[in-house]
Amino acid sequence: MSTALDDVLARLDHGLDDSLARLFALLRIPSVSTDPAYDRACTAAAAWLVETLSGLGFAASVRPTVGKPMVVAHWPAPDAGAPAATAPNGAGRVLFYGHYDVQPPDPLELWDTPPFEPRIEVAEDGSRRIVARGASDDKGQLMTFVEACRAWLAATGSLPVPVTILFEGEEETGSPSLPAFLAAHREELKAEVALVCDTSMWEPGVPAITTTLRGLVAEEVTITGPDRDLHSGLYGGAAINPIRVLTRILGALHDDRGRVCMPGFYDGVAPVPDAVQRQWDGLGFDLAGFLGGVGLSRPAGEDGVPALNQLWARPTCDINGICGGYTGTGAKTVIPREAFAKVSFRLVGGQDPAAVRDAFHRFVRDRLPGDCVARFENHAASPAIVLATETAQMAATRAALASEFGTDPVLMGCGGSIPIVGQFKRDLGIDSLLVGFALDDDRVHSPNEKYDVASFRHGARSWARVLAALGARG
Amino acid sequence: MSTALDDVLARLDHGLDDSLARLFALLRIPSVSTDPAYDRACTAAAAWLVETLSGLGFAASVRPTVGKPMVVAHWPAPDAGAPAATAPNGAGRVLFYGHYDVQPPDPLELWDTPPFEPRIEVAEDGSRRIVARGASDDKGQLMTFVEACRAWLAATGSLPVPVTILFEGEEETGSPSLPAFLAAHREELKAEVALVCDTSMWEPGVPAITTTLRGLVAEEVTITGPDRDLHSGLYGGAAINPIRVLTRILGALHDDRGRVCMPGFYDGVAPVPDAVQRQWDGLGFDLAGFLGGVGLSRPAGEDGVPALNQLWARPTCDINGICGGYTGTGAKTVIPREAFAKVSFRLVGGQDPAAVRDAFHRFVRDRLPGDCVARFENHAASPAIVLATETAQMAATRAALASEFGTDPVLMGCGGSIPIVGQFKRDLGIDSLLVGFALDDDRVHSPNEKYDVASFRHGARSWARVLAALGARG
Repeated sequence: MSTALDDVLARLDHGLDDSLARLFALLRIPSVSTDPAYDRACTAAAAWLVETLSGLGFAASVRPTVGKPMVVAHWPAPDAGAPAATAPNGAGRVLFYGHYDVQPPDPLELWDTPPFEPRIEVAEDGSRRIVARGASDDKGQLMTFVEACRAWLAATGSLPVPVTILFEGEEETGSPSLPAFLAAHREELKAEVALVCDTSMWEPGVPAITTTLRGLVAEEVTITGPDRDLHSGLYGGAAINPIRVLTRILGALHDDRGRVCMPGFYDGVAPVPDAVQRQWDGLGFDLAGFLGGVGLSRPAGEDGVPALNQLWARPTCDINGICGGYTGTGAKTVIPREAFAKVSFRLVGGQDPAAVRDAFHRFVRDRLPGDCVARFENHAASPAIVLATETAQMAATRAALASEFGTDPVLMGCGGSIPIVGQFKRDLGIDSLLVGFALDDDRVHSPNEKYDVASFRHGARSWARVLAALGARG
Repeated sequence: MSTALDDVLARLDHGLDDSLARLFALLRIPSVSTDPAYDRACTAAAAWLVETLSGLGFAASVRPTVGKPMVVAHWPAPDAGAPAATAPNGAGRVLFYGHYDVQPPDPLELWDTPPFEPRIEVAEDGSRRIVARGASDDKGQLMTFVEACRAWLAATGSLPVPVTILFEGEEETGSPSLPAFLAAHREELKAEVALVCDTSMWEPGVPAITTTLRGLVAEEVTITGPDRDLHSGLYGGAAINPIRVLTRILGALHDDRGRVCMPGFYDGVAPVPDAVQRQWDGLGFDLAGFLGGVGLSRPAGEDGVPALNQLWARPTCDINGICGGYTGTGAKTVIPREAFAKVSFRLVGGQDPAAVRDAFHRFVRDRLPGDCVARFENHAASPAIVLATETAQMAATRAALASEFGTDPVLMGCGGSIPIVGQFKRDLGIDSLLVGFALDDDRVHSPNEKYDVASFRHGARSWARVLAALGARG
């Protein structure tokens, strides 16, 4: 005798092609948040999600902000005022978060096919993957949850727990509109736990729950010297060159042992607890494979720090972009007026984003020659996150994933940043569960981004199981 | 009773507007040599010059090369074979050199009017200037000589000395086709002295003869790390970042006292002879005005070296361009696959261009982490030049300039490079005279390049006098 869950899982399996078609429709919308040229596409993506969720039976709507619009959807539809926090069976409401915005697709010439024309590619090992910008980060991931809800509602007419869905459109640009939105909708968004599907599996076939995230500070610095471009013969030697100043400053950010040289940078960095370190050491991380997969052979972080710690538990500084002077074909012997760089820092433990920003500004200003001026622009500032691992929802989720994959999920750290998790805790008082089905070779933020069909399929089935497990607790 | 020279000078004065119209026609041709997109314009500029010189009575023709075409013109037209080296009056042939190619106009948005639509601008002090890319470097300058020849031929039917004109189209890109052309046309181009009009006056109203030039080595270096762009959260800390590597290497090129750190770089740099140093010290160089004119206040070269020496007699290293990663609007937390920089060195004395290139390659490779690869492209390599000051032609030229301007010309160094001068000596055995009428505020290589109408007018009159003075020596 099949249970409701069996029926839901069967529907998901039979409806896979239709669900892929729906994901493709969302992937075709070029919802790039970092560039105003794509504003209308972002609006279109939000509208598509509202229409889709409404069709399932959610009370869904677009919520404008000063930036990109939010999508908010509730099941069951609220009678009046805020939605109920608890289901009739006593199970608490879950708040599912995702983001419909994607990274810019450039450099376009490195894509095998256009980034917003999704397609199924068959890999050498016969596995099928969805290729498009946003396939993994985050549209494929968020649609696993939407499809799980669809299958539950089609099979039983209801969801095992009350569900609120929140999709934003600015995650790739630091979610500037989110704090004010959360503050203004605290009652409407209250829930027992937040579910976030923006992380990875440990490896194909082995699920994971992410329990630590790094923070992020992203800055842009522009150095100006002469008041115009100069001829490097007529002025070279006497005139200060902003590219020389900028490279000298950036070149001094790290020492020869891979440490960041900004005073105070490591304040708030805590050692990894022994139990966690033992667990990480026992994971059998294939460093050679991880680096080899991108053409590298040796870790470039701090001397003497294990590679997983370099990725999950140590702060970093990276120059994401640099530009100045003549960069076209051939030579132009110019001393440019200015040069700029985009610099970001990944934070861990108790590092304070504002302190890191200040340290960076001081580091630059302390090294500026008298004739040069520096100006800064901030693009992101969020602290690191450590999540609880001993909760009832965590136990339920671990069991659901073990059932789907036939192996216990790994509790892993993540080198990336998901600021929403900190904001949910700080602004809404809600803890988060981070379960995702992406893979390290998904090429997120790179050309030819992909998401395995197996991730999409098992992801939706996993959420169907997680919803059942959370509902059974009531 | 007026002399032939008086007649010539009067014709130049009366025909100024017509001569400006001819210069404008040449300025309208966007003959940018550094970018193949402008190839046809370069060919058009060469054709215009041949047509113009033919119309004056020169035997002129376009000479194709593997790169941009040369323009060669002789007066008088050779009867057969090579042109005569000596005039009937015994005066030796002069070889006038100029270049019809110009620098790229970017950044376009900083031009007040389109760079290839020349116009007369009236400055605050009432002086008139020609504004266009190439107005000063080098079209305005070369046309001063062409107009002097036009006036002589119109007034007398002949020139005081035999004249060969050589215009090339690749000076801004290191003149790659020139060595082979000189070698192949040694007989045709032989002359007693070369005249080059590509330098500056000491200040408005004070003419100059340039006696030293710096050499130039221009390189492009590209550093590659991972085999694709990476997400800086997922890979940051473990993956090497080519921008970090590049900035660290470039940032190490100079020490805190402004010296270039490449081993062997200063080999061949000679101290300035006492007599020359005394002359330079007596020039009353207005450093504050020179730097203040471009928004700067302090010289950025080697500590303890006088500013004129930093510009004329010391070698330099400048980064002309740098690019890597994401440089568009907003943030993108990427570790890019590669980054590149365009680096050039100005040479003095006996510094060997090939040795400087090798030193730069070694400097980069010695600092490359194991996973990174560097590749290089060379755009220019020419040594410094020191010219003789005690020749008969020099004395004749000094006198001619003193007559025109009412003050003796300054014997000055130049921070820029004119490789042709070295090639004339090495390949043709010809010494050069460098007389030009540009000014420091001409904004060469920058937006809104200009050439004073007074420079154009006095320049043409000066060449008319110089031709007379050189012809009188026979």
